[in-house]
Amino acid sequence: MAGIKDVAKKANVGVGTVSRFLNNSGYVAEETKEKIRAAMRELNYTPNELARNLYRKRTGIIAILVPSISHPFFAAFLNYAEEALYAAGYKMMVCNTEKEQNAELEYLDMLNRHIVDGVITGVHTLDIEEYQKIRKPIVALDRYLGDHIPVVAVDHKEGGKLAAETLADNGCKNVLHFTGTTAVGSPYHQRHFEFNRIMEENGIRVFSYELEWNRMDPGYYQREVKRIFSGSIEFDGVFAVDGLAIACMNEALRRHLRIPEDIRIVAYDGTYLTDVVEPKVTAVVQPVKDLAEATVRLIKDMIDGNEICEKQVLLKVFLKQGETTKQGAVQK
Amino acid sequence: MAGIKDVAKKANVGVGTVSRFLNNSGYVAEETKEKIRAAMRELNYTPNELARNLYRKRTGIIAILVPSISHPFFAAFLNYAEEALYAAGYKMMVCNTEKEQNAELEYLDMLNRHIVDGVITGVHTLDIEEYQKIRKPIVALDRYLGDHIPVVAVDHKEGGKLAAETLADNGCKNVLHFTGTTAVGSPYHQRHFEFNRIMEENGIRVFSYELEWNRMDPGYYQREVKRIFSGSIEFDGVFAVDGLAIACMNEALRRHLRIPEDIRIVAYDGTYLTDVVEPKVTAVVQPVKDLAEATVRLIKDMIDGNEICEKQVLLKVFLKQGETTKQGAVQK
Repeated sequence: MAGIKDVAKKANVGVGTVSRFLNNSGYVAEETKEKIRAAMRELNYTPNELARNLYRKRTGIIAILVPSISHPFFAAFLNYAEEALYAAGYKMMVCNTEKEQNAELEYLDMLNRHIVDGVITGVHTLDIEEYQKIRKPIVALDRYLGDHIPVVAVDHKEGGKLAAETLADNGCKNVLHFTGTTAVGSPYHQRHFEFNRIMEENGIRVFSYELEWNRMDPGYYQREVKRIFSGSIEFDGVFAVDGLAIACMNEALRRHLRIPEDIRIVAYDGTYLTDVVEPKVTAVVQPVKDLAEATVRLIKDMIDGNEICEKQVLLKVFLKQGETTKQGAVQK
Repeated sequence: MAGIKDVAKKANVGVGTVSRFLNNSGYVAEETKEKIRAAMRELNYTPNELARNLYRKRTGIIAILVPSISHPFFAAFLNYAEEALYAAGYKMMVCNTEKEQNAELEYLDMLNRHIVDGVITGVHTLDIEEYQKIRKPIVALDRYLGDHIPVVAVDHKEGGKLAAETLADNGCKNVLHFTGTTAVGSPYHQRHFEFNRIMEENGIRVFSYELEWNRMDPGYYQREVKRIFSGSIEFDGVFAVDGLAIACMNEALRRHLRIPEDIRIVAYDGTYLTDVVEPKVTAVVQPVKDLAEATVRLIKDMIDGNEICEKQVLLKVFLKQGETTKQGAVQK
């Protein structure tokens, strides 16, 4: 197999010139570049990427950690992130951390071992201290991991406000409100505080249910929802993440309740699930494509050594009108 | 930073011994290993993975190509594949090829450039010839790419049979049948031939619709389904992939048709979407976890240099009884 020396000889230039060309690490005249390219073509020379990476201390790989690859929100995030990374010349490595506590630590260690150039993390199972030790490109999706790690998230406070106002404008008096555990530090929780605040302001009663963090399987949702509907609580509104909101809607339909006449529903996240079901669910939408693109932009800047001025990137949410609330209720 | 020489000195062994230990490339006594480990701990030595990979010509990375990361079937496949790869000591790189024709070729080239050790591909946009040129670990998910590339798929013929028999046993006389384009060589298509054969055998009329390959967005499905329901065709049964089957069900519900009394529906794939909607959809299920695990087992064997006896691994499908067909119809 042809090597770099053969290419240099064929192109009639020095080995250092070919190396500079391959690693894009110094000036090479355009004319010389053309000669090197021609020699590479002629010799069918493939640079050994491993050797090049060793020299550059770059692999062009970004790892993304998510609690579950198949969850609709994270699946969409990964889909858009991969597109943005690909466009920027990066490959995406994906780790599902649901299964193992160790995985998060292992991937952070891969930063030190030069296997990946950066980590985008949508999980957080470690002590914050583990993150404090690392001075490498890390961007957090919707998690607080320390002052030096930028966070990309939507304005969840606004999200909670939109949901609360929609249910209030729909005349709800008693509302079911599902929250994840607040033990994990995430901007995500802000929607709950704002939701409850506005409900209280409007004299609307809120029944709060705290569900397990990172438990997102339909079976679990359906069991919990059935239990609540079978209980003694009376309610006319629901605010919950997509999967739970849909489970509530289905349980209501099975009990021949009318939607939105008897129960109004607002989902949070607004993944495509809310469009697949019938009736379509009114939802506060996280712009997942924008989240993915902002995250990729930040990690790229960090790798390139650009100064990161933004400690937190907050993106706008919006209300997608479905058929589980009355139309036009919040057109303010 | 400590290097391999420092570790050797501290452990009082030769550099070659440390190298053999790190690369797992020859005999090192257990006692010696312990001394090396202790020295590494003491010196806080992190092996440079790039240098090790260069030596081993292995990166421990497997690339998986799918048409869309966020499609429920592929999202579930990736989730399980990542778990199986992780358990086997591999990391997963993911590429969504929907966006670019080039991506497939680029990832195959990464095999040659020693960036990935193997490729699992659930896509096929290239000429078969491109694959013929490559003698590296490649496993195909549900695609025919050439004699030397093993295929993992479910028994789609059996899947078509299950669907046909279910609709026949439910008394259907006129059935809508959606197919993808048959221009791409995939075992997937066999379900259509078998479905049509059994329908004909039973004197059931089939209206076939060929949809665009790899178009899987809910909006496209909903438009096509609306068009067909608005047409002059009368039908009492539907056989389609999950998303389309659900779109048909929703359109039927909007038109106040009763399910399963007026229209019986059998979905193909049986992703969690069929459990999220109300009523739950009867489905022929592809065991996606088994598919992922079989694919990972094969790619691992190929990388390890084991002889692959199986040119094709066919897994069983099964019928998941939902509420869109009558119960017990196919308990044979």
